[in-house]
Amino acid sequence: MSLRDRVRDVVDGRRFQRFVIGVIVVNAVVLGCETSAALVAAHGDLLAALDRTALVFFVLELVARLYAHRTRFFRDPWNAFDLAVVAVSVFPAAGPLSVLRSLRVLRALRLVSAVPSMRRVVTALVRSVPGLLSLTGLLVLLLYVGGVVAVNLFRHSGDPRFADLGSTVLTLFQVTTGDGWSDVMRDLMATQPLAWVFFLVYLLVGTFTVLNLFIAVVCGAMEPESPPDRMLLDEVRALREEVRALRLAPVGDR
Amino acid sequence: MSLRDRVRDVVDGRRFQRFVIGVIVVNAVVLGCETSAALVAAHGDLLAALDRTALVFFVLELVARLYAHRTRFFRDPWNAFDLAVVAVSVFPAAGPLSVLRSLRVLRALRLVSAVPSMRRVVTALVRSVPGLLSLTGLLVLLLYVGGVVAVNLFRHSGDPRFADLGSTVLTLFQVTTGDGWSDVMRDLMATQPLAWVFFLVYLLVGTFTVLNLFIAVVCGAMEPESPPDRMLLDEVRALREEVRALRLAPVGDR
Amino acid sequence: MSLRDRVRDVVDGRRFQRFVIGVIVVNAVVLGCETSAALVAAHGDLLAALDRTALVFFVLELVARLYAHRTRFFRDPWNAFDLAVVAVSVFPAAGPLSVLRSLRVLRALRLVSAVPSMRRVVTALVRSVPGLLSLTGLLVLLLYVGGVVAVNLFRHSGDPRFADLGSTVLTLFQVTTGDGWSDVMRDLMATQPLAWVFFLVYLLVGTFTVLNLFIAVVCGAMEPESPPDRMLLDEVRALREEVRALRLAPVGDR
Amino acid sequence: MSLRDRVRDVVDGRRFQRFVIGVIVVNAVVLGCETSAALVAAHGDLLAALDRTALVFFVLELVARLYAHRTRFFRDPWNAFDLAVVAVSVFPAAGPLSVLRSLRVLRALRLVSAVPSMRRVVTALVRSVPGLLSLTGLLVLLLYVGGVVAVNLFRHSGDPRFADLGSTVLTLFQVTTGDGWSDVMRDLMATQPLAWVFFLVYLLVGTFTVLNLFIAVVCGAMEPESPPDRMLLDEVRALREEVRALRLAPVGDR
Repeated sequence: MSLRDRVRDVVDGRRFQRFVIGVIVVNAVVLGCETSAALVAAHGDLLAALDRTALVFFVLELVARLYAHRTRFFRDPWNAFDLAVVAVSVFPAAGPLSVLRSLRVLRALRLVSAVPSMRRVVTALVRSVPGLLSLTGLLVLLLYVGGVVAVNLFRHSGDPRFADLGSTVLTLFQVTTGDGWSDVMRDLMATQPLAWVFFLVYLLVGTFTVLNLFIAVVCGAMEPESPPDRMLLDEVRALREEVRALRLAPVGDR
Repeated sequence: MSLRDRVRDVVDGRRFQRFVIGVIVVNAVVLGCETSAALVAAHGDLLAALDRTALVFFVLELVARLYAHRTRFFRDPWNAFDLAVVAVSVFPAAGPLSVLRSLRVLRALRLVSAVPSMRRVVTALVRSVPGLLSLTGLLVLLLYVGGVVAVNLFRHSGDPRFADLGSTVLTLFQVTTGDGWSDVMRDLMATQPLAWVFFLVYLLVGTFTVLNLFIAVVCGAMEPESPPDRMLLDEVRALREEVRALRLAPVGDR
Repeated sequence: MSLRDRVRDVVDGRRFQRFVIGVIVVNAVVLGCETSAALVAAHGDLLAALDRTALVFFVLELVARLYAHRTRFFRDPWNAFDLAVVAVSVFPAAGPLSVLRSLRVLRALRLVSAVPSMRRVVTALVRSVPGLLSLTGLLVLLLYVGGVVAVNLFRHSGDPRFADLGSTVLTLFQVTTGDGWSDVMRDLMATQPLAWVFFLVYLLVGTFTVLNLFIAVVCGAMEPESPPDRMLLDEVRALREEVRALRLAPVGDR
Repeated sequence: MSLRDRVRDVVDGRRFQRFVIGVIVVNAVVLGCETSAALVAAHGDLLAALDRTALVFFVLELVARLYAHRTRFFRDPWNAFDLAVVAVSVFPAAGPLSVLRSLRVLRALRLVSAVPSMRRVVTALVRSVPGLLSLTGLLVLLLYVGGVVAVNLFRHSGDPRFADLGSTVLTLFQVTTGDGWSDVMRDLMATQPLAWVFFLVYLLVGTFTVLNLFIAVVCGAMEPESPPDRMLLDEVRALREEVRALRLAPVGDR
């Protein structure tokens, strides 16, 4: 048994994978603790050391898996996911930008690839995305067209939510989610009494589209040909074969 | 090959249709840029020229398609849609009304008719409308009846949201969408402590109706007779024919 | 043909029923106009006269239908609905209570019983109610138990939304619909920092129950045995009969 | 007939169970009345006496059921539920903590175990929980990761909703339910103009996950193999058996 085989046995083993899950959880807790000024003041060095240790472990684990599986490593998109998540953590680790530093916590998302049942759930989620692209495109188009119409209509109302195209599209997105749309409308109606016409049309068209987007997700989740139907079809076809055989066989042979 | 055939080959060709999509997208971006005072100040003439060019292109394209397909042009409702969208853009182009001018961006909706997958999505959306008319009528009736009751009950509360029938119906529509209904109710309860009775009844009846409207959409989307069922039925019927043949055929013939 | 038969032919005729729909719509519009102080000042007498005429017409129509159908009249629940709606309108017509007077507009709901497609929709809605009673009971129990717990916990916070059991249950109903629940919670957390525990538990349990209530409605709407399945079953059973006949028939007879 | 049998006949009898339901309802009303300072001032002793009587009755009832069913008592999880609910009531009854005292009203939840139709509903609800664990875990992970990212990004904005990890996770939960998310975002955008990027990404990912959680509930409720399908399968299989018999039987035998 070569070294490569032995490494593969270790990294693919259940015990090692449970240990990885443990490191991910501990690392996530450490990153959570680092958000508390009090904890950082008291145990900042310990937390930083733990975080660095976990990062080194993740890098070594990836290297070991790459060594064990060679190019097959890249066939599984979850490995690419792990690689990306760790890469995002390595580069900004020493950087000055707090925005990039805060992305280190994305490492906790490795839990998704490490726990099989979460992996299944996310795979199912991701698979339902392509079927939604057309409707999402329609929704983006509605937001853009509605935004250009709204910014032309309401730009001069003095409402900062309709000051430019960007703000307007963001406001329309808010209206589409139904959060506080009536406040937005009533504020506008103080200066533009007919604003309700735009909101009514936009809400009906937008909500109807979102509703159908939702239905598309539901319909995608319930595949049309369910297992019992396929079993039935197979059964009926087998039966038909048998009847055909009955018809073709010579009488004496039966 | 006549001129008409050649024109048809061009306007129905994939390359030309992609070019049309390109023009629609560029035109939509131009219309978006025209909402920015800074961009209009800097490049106003260029934007206006691009917009006019796109409009001329759309008119010529429609004329070419009309010439190529003659009266068959009007059989496809999507062509009527394109015609309406471009017509809305042509007439107000020189008009003084900013409201009408802002409708020019509806031209971007031509993207829906130009991209086949969006076309399918919108066709599916539009097809589900007729099944919803009865429930929508019921909802409008509820809004009207609820509005007349509410305006009689709450008119003298001094709340501008219940000042007249129009405002009241708009407020009830807001309540039906669930946005800020509790604020509306609490403000009223300061002067009319029993207002919650009306809101509770209206919310339960209205939400239940909307919920069923939603279910009607879902049920409409999942057609009752799914393809595998139809395949099964055909299979079983063919089988029955065969068994019947088996029964009727003389023994020697088998 | 007796007078009763002739009356029945008239009241059940399509033309008469369309006329009734017309009177209902005109009456609804009149009741809407009566909410406008300006219109009442200008045409108050006309509106009142129209309203009274419509009421007299509805009473006469009901008497005619009662005469034509005798006791069978009461077998159709829609007739009871019409009777109740008109009765609600007759009694308070002269009363001093504006609350009762405003209920006259419920007459417009007769549109539901007069238009066949709305009748079907409402019949379907009403039929789905019994299946929801258990879950609604559970929701009411949750509101009551949650209300007693919340009023004990938050009564002394000074928040008027938790002043007594009634207000608390109303507030929890608001939380269940998801409208402004975070405002309610944040206001409480100023005095009771652990209030979020109650809200989290209540929201999860309550929303989960409502979600299942919703699903119960959906499942009720999609009956388990769909028509094509029934056709298939019939087809397969007929086939089986035929095969059985084939087996039992003497060879010569075939 | 032993004493144990006679006790069992009583506690399992319909009349006794209806009486238990009556006591639960009366007790729930008493606990509701105890939240009113006015009622406690006037009839405090009576209410306390009724409450204590009900508690004694519940304890005696449980003892009787334990005596009648012995260890089989614990096989039904509803009995454990009753025991837990009554135990929660007994211990704090004399305690000083108002929080624990307010949990006494959980006794009213015994209505769920006492009314068969509610029992069925709650059993169905509980059964759908295991299938949701993976998605709920994913949602908790999203809240945690999003919380750590958000607290790093927005901690210095001075907004108390992002002051520490706990507040931030609570705020993100609020955003996930869609309640007032735009207010949270707009307040942040005053100091951090790019906050909308975080909210957009979080809302899309979070809402999509919640939506799928919802669908998982729906799909769990509608089991894949519906009864008519199973009937059909049985029917077709029986038919196949018959055709096989037809084929194997000697000609003369038929």
